[in-house]
Amino acid sequence: MSLINSQICLKSYPEHLPTPENFALKQSTVDELNEGEVLCKTLFLSLDPYMRSQIAGRHITAPIKPGDLMFGETVSEVIETRSTQYSKGDVVRCMGGWQSYSIHNANELSAPILHPQPSYALSILGMPGLTAYAGLIWQAQPKRGEVVVIPAATGGVGATAGQLAKQAGCKVVGIVGSEEKRQYAINELGYDECINRNAEVVAERLDELCPDGINIYFDLVGGELLHQVSTRLAIGARVILCGLVAEYNNKERMQGPAPALWIKSRATVFGLVVYDFEPRRQEFINACLPLVEHGELKMREDITLGIENAPYAFAKLMQGNNHGKTLVKVVV
Amino acid sequence: MSLINSQICLKSYPEHLPTPENFALKQSTVDELNEGEVLCKTLFLSLDPYMRSQIAGRHITAPIKPGDLMFGETVSEVIETRSTQYSKGDVVRCMGGWQSYSIHNANELSAPILHPQPSYALSILGMPGLTAYAGLIWQAQPKRGEVVVIPAATGGVGATAGQLAKQAGCKVVGIVGSEEKRQYAINELGYDECINRNAEVVAERLDELCPDGINIYFDLVGGELLHQVSTRLAIGARVILCGLVAEYNNKERMQGPAPALWIKSRATVFGLVVYDFEPRRQEFINACLPLVEHGELKMREDITLGIENAPYAFAKLMQGNNHGKTLVKVVV
Repeated sequence: MSLINSQICLKSYPEHLPTPENFALKQSTVDELNEGEVLCKTLFLSLDPYMRSQIAGRHITAPIKPGDLMFGETVSEVIETRSTQYSKGDVVRCMGGWQSYSIHNANELSAPILHPQPSYALSILGMPGLTAYAGLIWQAQPKRGEVVVIPAATGGVGATAGQLAKQAGCKVVGIVGSEEKRQYAINELGYDECINRNAEVVAERLDELCPDGINIYFDLVGGELLHQVSTRLAIGARVILCGLVAEYNNKERMQGPAPALWIKSRATVFGLVVYDFEPRRQEFINACLPLVEHGELKMREDITLGIENAPYAFAKLMQGNNHGKTLVKVVV
Repeated sequence: MSLINSQICLKSYPEHLPTPENFALKQSTVDELNEGEVLCKTLFLSLDPYMRSQIAGRHITAPIKPGDLMFGETVSEVIETRSTQYSKGDVVRCMGGWQSYSIHNANELSAPILHPQPSYALSILGMPGLTAYAGLIWQAQPKRGEVVVIPAATGGVGATAGQLAKQAGCKVVGIVGSEEKRQYAINELGYDECINRNAEVVAERLDELCPDGINIYFDLVGGELLHQVSTRLAIGARVILCGLVAEYNNKERMQGPAPALWIKSRATVFGLVVYDFEPRRQEFINACLPLVEHGELKMREDITLGIENAPYAFAKLMQGNNHGKTLVKVVV
């Protein structure tokens, strides 16, 4: 068997927003397997904002340098195996990267995925879903009637957190970048209110919509919005620090809100890294799978076809022009 | 009875550090009591850094304006009563303010203080002690072997937190402003290590003393040190945001550390306001009184004589030239 592997590597560091020109397509022959290894064909690749942080060398995982294959989580099908742990045809979750084939030691693969829509293992039932669940349910512990504010409200993490907050009986206010997303947040995801940050003054709208303050802020963006929300926290607020999209494209890290704001509101602020919650993934799936099956937890997936188009999809994601969880469907 | 009350009022806003000239002494006759009221003679007045924040109008309690009597907690003796709740000679804790006599509705006084050293109700067994206990024990929950860093390590809150952290089996590193305080922290309070920030490079010393990172930071100062510590947190660190001495004398609030630092360390950050823990004061006293009685929890008190000298004592406190908990002993 002599399969051709298409790989997307970093070509150059982006100055600010990444463009497709920052990436290069390489092709090579797939290696032979060693004992204990498994050959996987990529079905879906997950594209996520944290990858911009990896390129900047600031993510807690390894940095990515020009010439390196781009990292990424995939749902992949086992097509050849020299391990007794997996059979041909098993569909698994693995760190396949931005490529059409990947070889793994069998220990690096997840258990076979059994639910009928395998892409969900990268979205609502995958890392974005687990991130939302860990931050909102395990860390913030929402109570009925509390006010929850979620930026990037229709993205993979935000959409899940918003729906979970509604399930918990909260008033949920989203923040998005377009009227189309605002409509989607309210009409499809069930947000009580949603602010279009490109058409409205966010601080004023927060004052109107949260007159008694904000109880929970699920921060996915950092930057100026984190300051604005921090001045509007209710007593006993919880802030989940999870993402920093506002600064991923910058060379410098931004400073945080004045500590006095968090003292004043007696806030509890949690730094969230989803990898810490990997041991509790099954607990999360057990809680959310029934909701997904009953249509009570939804996820729009923004699917681009072809690994060669991953750089375009990533640039679109980093411009905020995605609609839901960004995935690449690999066709070979 | 026609008693003369000496009162210290704010005269003018300090530009930066307060000086005695920012305050004025007023004298007046003590009023007659109404039904349900109690007349108290001040024994000890507590002076605390948060008062600088009240003068700046930024504290969560009411602001203090020129002409206003300075607020403050006191240990006072009941010398006249029109309430059945208290008897002459009772020693109580109350918000007596910077004055030699104060009149209160009986409901505003604490239960009579029974332990033999009443000034302790303003120091190790009072608000500074409760602050330290709430932040370190209830919020941060120290575990044996963890590394705890405490700035203002010999002040009222810091000294208590440091000793409690030692009791919990932690490695405790203090930061102080003089060699004399450094010696005191190590030799009397039992700190494992102590950094003199005016003689050593704090960041370098933290690297040497905490090679595996800092597990708990009890922040009493804010400012640049909070940034420096935040870059050195261990995974799962806890940060107690309690005081902002570094900025109390400034007109502007400083920004906080980059949120990325707290994400990276999966920190939990707690805003601490001691008033929230008032319902648990007895629990704290029950835990600490035996330690105080057995000499396992100590507090040096820096006592100035005479209410007229309170402005000098406060200026000295805000310059960091106090040695232990600052109190004024009122003599009439």
